[in-house]
Amino acid sequence: MTFDYFFKPKAIAVIGASNDPLKLGYEVFKNLKKYKEGRVYPVNVKDEVVQGVKAYKNVRNIPDEVDLAVIVVPKRFVKQTVIDCGEKGVKGIVLITAGFGETGEEGKREEKELVEIAHKYGMRIIGPNCVGIMNTHNDMNATFIMDAKRGDIAFVSQSGALGAGIVYKTVKEGIGFSKFISIGNMADVDFSELMEYLADDEESKAIALYIEGVKDGRKFMEAAKKVTKKKPVIVLKAGKSESGARAASSHTGSLAGSYKIYEAAFKQTGILVANTIDEMLSMARAFTQPLPKGNRVAIMTNAGGPGVLTADEIDKHGLKLANLEEETMQKLREFLPPMAAVKNPVDMIASARGEEYYKTAKLLLEDKNVDMLIAICVVPTFAGMTPTEHAEGVIRAVKEVNNGKPVLALFMAGYVSEPAKELLEKEGIPVYERPEDVGIAAYALWEIARRKNG
Amino acid sequence: MTFDYFFKPKAIAVIGASNDPLKLGYEVFKNLKKYKEGRVYPVNVKDEVVQGVKAYKNVRNIPDEVDLAVIVVPKRFVKQTVIDCGEKGVKGIVLITAGFGETGEEGKREEKELVEIAHKYGMRIIGPNCVGIMNTHNDMNATFIMDAKRGDIAFVSQSGALGAGIVYKTVKEGIGFSKFISIGNMADVDFSELMEYLADDEESKAIALYIEGVKDGRKFMEAAKKVTKKKPVIVLKAGKSESGARAASSHTGSLAGSYKIYEAAFKQTGILVANTIDEMLSMARAFTQPLPKGNRVAIMTNAGGPGVLTADEIDKHGLKLANLEEETMQKLREFLPPMAAVKNPVDMIASARGEEYYKTAKLLLEDKNVDMLIAICVVPTFAGMTPTEHAEGVIRAVKEVNNGKPVLALFMAGYVSEPAKELLEKEGIPVYERPEDVGIAAYALWEIARRKNG
Repeated sequence: MTFDYFFKPKAIAVIGASNDPLKLGYEVFKNLKKYKEGRVYPVNVKDEVVQGVKAYKNVRNIPDEVDLAVIVVPKRFVKQTVIDCGEKGVKGIVLITAGFGETGEEGKREEKELVEIAHKYGMRIIGPNCVGIMNTHNDMNATFIMDAKRGDIAFVSQSGALGAGIVYKTVKEGIGFSKFISIGNMADVDFSELMEYLADDEESKAIALYIEGVKDGRKFMEAAKKVTKKKPVIVLKAGKSESGARAASSHTGSLAGSYKIYEAAFKQTGILVANTIDEMLSMARAFTQPLPKGNRVAIMTNAGGPGVLTADEIDKHGLKLANLEEETMQKLREFLPPMAAVKNPVDMIASARGEEYYKTAKLLLEDKNVDMLIAICVVPTFAGMTPTEHAEGVIRAVKEVNNGKPVLALFMAGYVSEPAKELLEKEGIPVYERPEDVGIAAYALWEIARRKNG
Repeated sequence: MTFDYFFKPKAIAVIGASNDPLKLGYEVFKNLKKYKEGRVYPVNVKDEVVQGVKAYKNVRNIPDEVDLAVIVVPKRFVKQTVIDCGEKGVKGIVLITAGFGETGEEGKREEKELVEIAHKYGMRIIGPNCVGIMNTHNDMNATFIMDAKRGDIAFVSQSGALGAGIVYKTVKEGIGFSKFISIGNMADVDFSELMEYLADDEESKAIALYIEGVKDGRKFMEAAKKVTKKKPVIVLKAGKSESGARAASSHTGSLAGSYKIYEAAFKQTGILVANTIDEMLSMARAFTQPLPKGNRVAIMTNAGGPGVLTADEIDKHGLKLANLEEETMQKLREFLPPMAAVKNPVDMIASARGEEYYKTAKLLLEDKNVDMLIAICVVPTFAGMTPTEHAEGVIRAVKEVNNGKPVLALFMAGYVSEPAKELLEKEGIPVYERPEDVGIAAYALWEIARRKNG
């Protein structure tokens, strides 16, 4: 598809690549040196060598076809650089340099001119005033920030710094992205086009957007309507309140618009609306799982409290606790201790080990009244146990039953849970740390299923 | 106060202390060996020595006055052990052993009998069926779980496992507790009495309660009314929804009751109601700061997006963006770059360093239209910067201005923020990772201030 030159380029020029660690062009080139799928060339007007690699004075001097140029030169050189890229036959430009549309009318005019030049040469621009783009699946990090973790969510952010903050947060929390795109001022490439590209991207199972303001509402809605038929789109819209809208307006200069209008539009196009960053990420992560046939949820847990909190959360979102079949409860009774609760939520109590997790998950997945399973593990309080065996039990049951019912996990044991969480994620079972996160993930799966079924 | 024998005992007997790492009595004694303020004696019917310490066959054989006994013996030995404790002159019992009231009518009867025996000897019981208690300020960990981080929040949990999960979570997130109390079945000591004790505990700035069901509603309300006059009480009530209530009822056997009734009662008594674990912790952590005089919030940030999201959150909770004085904006304009926004939220843009954080925080705290300050830092995107200098800037301003206005921080840079967060926390400035958390913390401060002012 058309944007492959952005995300799978054969050759990249980093224009403004630097040897000075205090410059953004240093970080960008350092990050891009790890790119696997193509060649990367530094362009620097002064230095012959950048970070150990032969550099070129101008992109036009590079003895190779260049499809992507990442531009980090000072603002006064940007226009000529874009022209040079055009002459060179570059296809995509990631324009990191700031100081354009976000500064006022003069900047908007300059930005528009850049886009006109680019279009004349058949080039497209992401930015300006952005952090850059990443494709974690081929290790392309064309930004000046740390590598995101590889994963299944395509994340597009209208705020570069917030996007960066979210990358740092997700790295810490073990959440992965397929693509990360900081779109900056959206002078050219916008949400609509990116969504359409990402809709067909096999490495992305869901699309998450952080939006402050949309420029062309009609175009956005038309694109969203098409894209949501192929893939879930989750939006976090900033500027919901009067205070927030005022803040957004001074941030981007664009009117945030009434949130109610946005919300109605999002819903009409099949977009899932998130209220917080964690809601956005929690929903997006759910889609490694199949869609449920209904809204009846079985909860299994080794502790009552989290079962209750999770039941509260799913109820809030219009899902309900499944009424287990008599036979299921009978079979659970056979191996669970007398103090266990075999009614949904099934409380296997603190003594539950991997084997109990396996048997319980299996029975619940096989129960015809169950559409979705949430497996909860609080820190196992019996000496010598770690949550890893519980994760393994769930995974074994899912593999054996294999009947297309979605499974989500809630593992609440801080550092102790980390190896278990890695295991589950490797099997594509999204694992959360908070009842509200697993609750909204369950909602997201059910909501998309419901819409598909009309 | 009366419960000092629970939290500051001179001598502790661990009855059921064990050499077998698979037993709870192993973990409890291992944890208590670190206790600083008093002596700790293992009691074990078989072993002469437990974990290198001389053990006693019976609590009555200990050649010392014992004020606290932690009981982890099998259920069938509990009754005689309680009698032995009474004969020995023990004052407080933490009864970890399970299998009582939570199992049904017979268990309830047995539990009641234990309490009668205890009362006859003038003893009080926390539990049974609990994880134990901790006082982080004297390193007393009378539980079988990991040490909580030392801090200012007293946390009482009706679910042992959830409480444990929260301890593990807070350790990972760097959040501290002053006391941790797993109250189990509340056969004797209940929320009301603990709240009253904690109200006068100088090491606790706020009290957080996880409640599934209250046994004596009237007593609870009377205690809460008294306690909230001295100290903020924050409650997370599980079983809000029909599903949740059903789950809670099968968990504790007690009726969860209508959440609406609980909510009304909580509000009437001055309790702050949390909807999630993170809301509970975020609110409780705010009270290292003074109360604001009004609801006008100034936000300073190095990135627009998080400023907008935070403005949305404070608006949701009835706070508002302060209208800065002309003079403040003029002075900000003098040193901030032209692209910065000097209107609240003040966006110092990504180039802001520690010095800009210091000057901006100072001006905002000095502005007479500002009641509260939220300082935001997203990962500084200019090479060579770390959030530590931003934290230092804020701290310096707070110390210099020192005019009693509360300051909260939002640092969103994953691992990169950790040293900065530690610095802020050391100065008593609560620091959050998510806009919704800092938003509800601001609400908690304002809500308590509002109530105090009538």
